[in-house]
Amino acid sequence: MLTFVGLGLYNEEDITLKGQVAIRDADIVFAEFYTSPLGGRTVERMKEIYGKRIIRLERSEIEEQAEEVILNQAKNQDVVLLSGGDAMIATTHIDLRLRAIDAGIETRIVHAPSISSAVAGISGLQNYKFGKSATVSPPYRDAISEVPYETVRANKERGLHTLLYLDLSMSINDALDLLEAVEDRKAKENFGGGTFKLKRSVFIGIARAGSDDQVVKADYMGGLKSYEFGELPHVLIVPGELHFLEREALIKIADAPESI
Amino acid sequence: MLTFVGLGLYNEEDITLKGQVAIRDADIVFAEFYTSPLGGRTVERMKEIYGKRIIRLERSEIEEQAEEVILNQAKNQDVVLLSGGDAMIATTHIDLRLRAIDAGIETRIVHAPSISSAVAGISGLQNYKFGKSATVSPPYRDAISEVPYETVRANKERGLHTLLYLDLSMSINDALDLLEAVEDRKAKENFGGGTFKLKRSVFIGIARAGSDDQVVKADYMGGLKSYEFGELPHVLIVPGELHFLEREALIKIADAPESI
Repeated sequence: MLTFVGLGLYNEEDITLKGQVAIRDADIVFAEFYTSPLGGRTVERMKEIYGKRIIRLERSEIEEQAEEVILNQAKNQDVVLLSGGDAMIATTHIDLRLRAIDAGIETRIVHAPSISSAVAGISGLQNYKFGKSATVSPPYRDAISEVPYETVRANKERGLHTLLYLDLSMSINDALDLLEAVEDRKAKENFGGGTFKLKRSVFIGIARAGSDDQVVKADYMGGLKSYEFGELPHVLIVPGELHFLEREALIKIADAPESI
Repeated sequence: MLTFVGLGLYNEEDITLKGQVAIRDADIVFAEFYTSPLGGRTVERMKEIYGKRIIRLERSEIEEQAEEVILNQAKNQDVVLLSGGDAMIATTHIDLRLRAIDAGIETRIVHAPSISSAVAGISGLQNYKFGKSATVSPPYRDAISEVPYETVRANKERGLHTLLYLDLSMSINDALDLLEAVEDRKAKENFGGGTFKLKRSVFIGIARAGSDDQVVKADYMGGLKSYEFGELPHVLIVPGELHFLEREALIKIADAPESI
């Protein structure tokens, strides 16, 4: 059996009791931290708290050598694969699960807190009003993807909030720079000649969600760019239309300017 | 201090280690089960496993008597409020948190697995491709809300998936009947004269997410209506455009017809 166990938001205590039992009962426990952040965890402390040997896998061991490293073991042993956040969110995991099913291996998921639902409670924004999300990635050969910018625009047109995941190495400041660069380029090219100006929007930055030193700060782009969020991981929300309760929450919980 | 602690998806083991510690350290532990389902939990078993007295609150005690029942206690004691799923998703909780902040009470959230992120792993659909979500509720004075139907339509136009939460008392079959009734009415009134036909769409029904007897089944509306999902809680997904990996997942994980 292959069981995907989510580790939750930040540290070793964000796993569920069910997840802990799955680790305890497993024959082999793997962990990977390239689809989601390691956060405040260390493999050493995980071993200590969960009372089990944990083998950290490299990207290539999952994407290229899954058969020998994981699937062959899972045929006649109970194998657990740990990853941050909720389990089975990354395409890599879906692919691995389908290959396991093809090989006649039983699969199971033990869910955990995910940043995608946690941001609603953290910011005070309403969960059901989030539209499609997107990931801000570093430029590839100097090309900056417009997908995050266009996702925000399309959501804003419908009054919806956007959660922007950031590349694991990326800060809120880096992401705001990239979004601004896309808008500047569009303005120059005159394609963005409409009324949509992301620069005038409020943003909510969240650092180290779920940790004891979590930071949540809402402000206009300019203000947020000079804000010191500290250590990664970071995510960014671009709110759409605000209900009066959401506005109140942003002011009281995320220290937003009264003018929003 | 007032700490909102999520209980997770289904039973007593879906809480995080952090949540369990918060309960253990609390002076008073309340629980409410009107914003989210009780699922496979009982208050008795929660007391046993968490080793603490748990006071179940009625809706009116939170919405009308929060000050006396909860906030006054939280001024000088550590109060925990338990609810199903992730914490602080319901508007009621956001409202309560803001009132606590106004009263100078420190607040904290301990997150838990939420159905809103779990459905991606459960179905094999990609998390970032979900658009706005909506709730299907029983008719109010014979009036059926069009919001869920229109939410699906708007998402489908952009190729996005829709998660439909169902009223706590509602089954997948009930929800499909209501969606069909809205479409029939629109067809009669000739407003729905376009090409959009929800009846021709594939749906994914999920019953008792996160439990040992979870059921996931994808089919066209007709097929799904005669499918026996068993006990509540239920949710429904209407997929948008399917990536080939999503299609493969629906066939292998959710037993979808090969023709999708």
